[in-house]
Amino acid sequence: MGDTVGLTDSEAKELCKQSDGSTKDFSMQQTMYRIKDPRKSLPFYTEVLGMTLLQKLDFPEMKFSLFFLGYESPDDIPKNKAEQIEWTFSRKATLELTHNWGTESDPDCEYHTGNSDPRGYGHIGLQVPDVEKACERFESLGVQFLKKPNDGKMKGIAFIKDPDGYWIEILNSKTMVSICHH
Amino acid sequence: MGDTVGLTDSEAKELCKQSDGSTKDFSMQQTMYRIKDPRKSLPFYTEVLGMTLLQKLDFPEMKFSLFFLGYESPDDIPKNKAEQIEWTFSRKATLELTHNWGTESDPDCEYHTGNSDPRGYGHIGLQVPDVEKACERFESLGVQFLKKPNDGKMKGIAFIKDPDGYWIEILNSKTMVSICHH
Repeated sequence: MGDTVGLTDSEAKELCKQSDGSTKDFSMQQTMYRIKDPRKSLPFYTEVLGMTLLQKLDFPEMKFSLFFLGYESPDDIPKNKAEQIEWTFSRKATLELTHNWGTESDPDCEYHTGNSDPRGYGHIGLQVPDVEKACERFESLGVQFLKKPNDGKMKGIAFIKDPDGYWIEILNSKTMVSICHH
Repeated sequence: MGDTVGLTDSEAKELCKQSDGSTKDFSMQQTMYRIKDPRKSLPFYTEVLGMTLLQKLDFPEMKFSLFFLGYESPDDIPKNKAEQIEWTFSRKATLELTHNWGTESDPDCEYHTGNSDPRGYGHIGLQVPDVEKACERFESLGVQFLKKPNDGKMKGIAFIKDPDGYWIEILNSKTMVSICHH
């Protein structure tokens, strides 16, 4: 019995097959999770994290709303509703927050982050120009930290919590070189 | 006691405060979840969904590897390892798959999708040029469906499962207008 090991680079390379041409124009459009209270999440993702609300969609028969957020300029959002929907769903890298109406006043509703049992989902990660500076500002705004940039082994990356406790990594691409290049 | 309702458009608008200028260059870089077996996930995300493996990072002391995938051209990946890391972490909308070594042979390891109790995370969503065509191809490749484009009320969107059971929405921005514009 040998030690438990991961894939070698060449094994990984071989497992990654090229797709046929039909996937050429696919894009990564959204990441969805459920939120308990948009009155907490909307200010957090806009004012604190700097995202823009791209679109709000209501489904009254099913009693839920969807909030699409992303790093887009508010000036680019089409005024016409149909155009706005098409525009939103052709943006890349949006966050889709699902609000099931009434959860905000339900003491039994608490969403699961995926980082304790049963595990699965982990986090989203934001690339920022300066992790230290971003985190000082988050601290001054009362954001909760799971890991500050200087905690632990991986200096230079941070993890914060959103209002539901979901994890958000704060990273800088240049700093990642020193962390990951052993 | 009134009916349970969601936010009005104006309430939502008021909750979305503008950030200060310091978040201007933030970007949505990654969505991370854990996978049981990269031998299943890598072929799925590359050959079936058309993503490219941007970077594999190994952490032998902690016995895990990270696989970054995204809709990028393989030709754009820098050959130099340090450059490759910086490049990967400055891409938007990547998927980060975490493989804790040995989970693939652990009968007790099954990751939680977030869509049954305890709920939280939902799915990623891919924008594709033609949902029908994409789904016919997925079917021919043996992909498992949660919802085919013609099932249920929301005609024109589909949900498939990745090898761990994580949900992936397949959508087209033009089709979303007819679904969401009531």
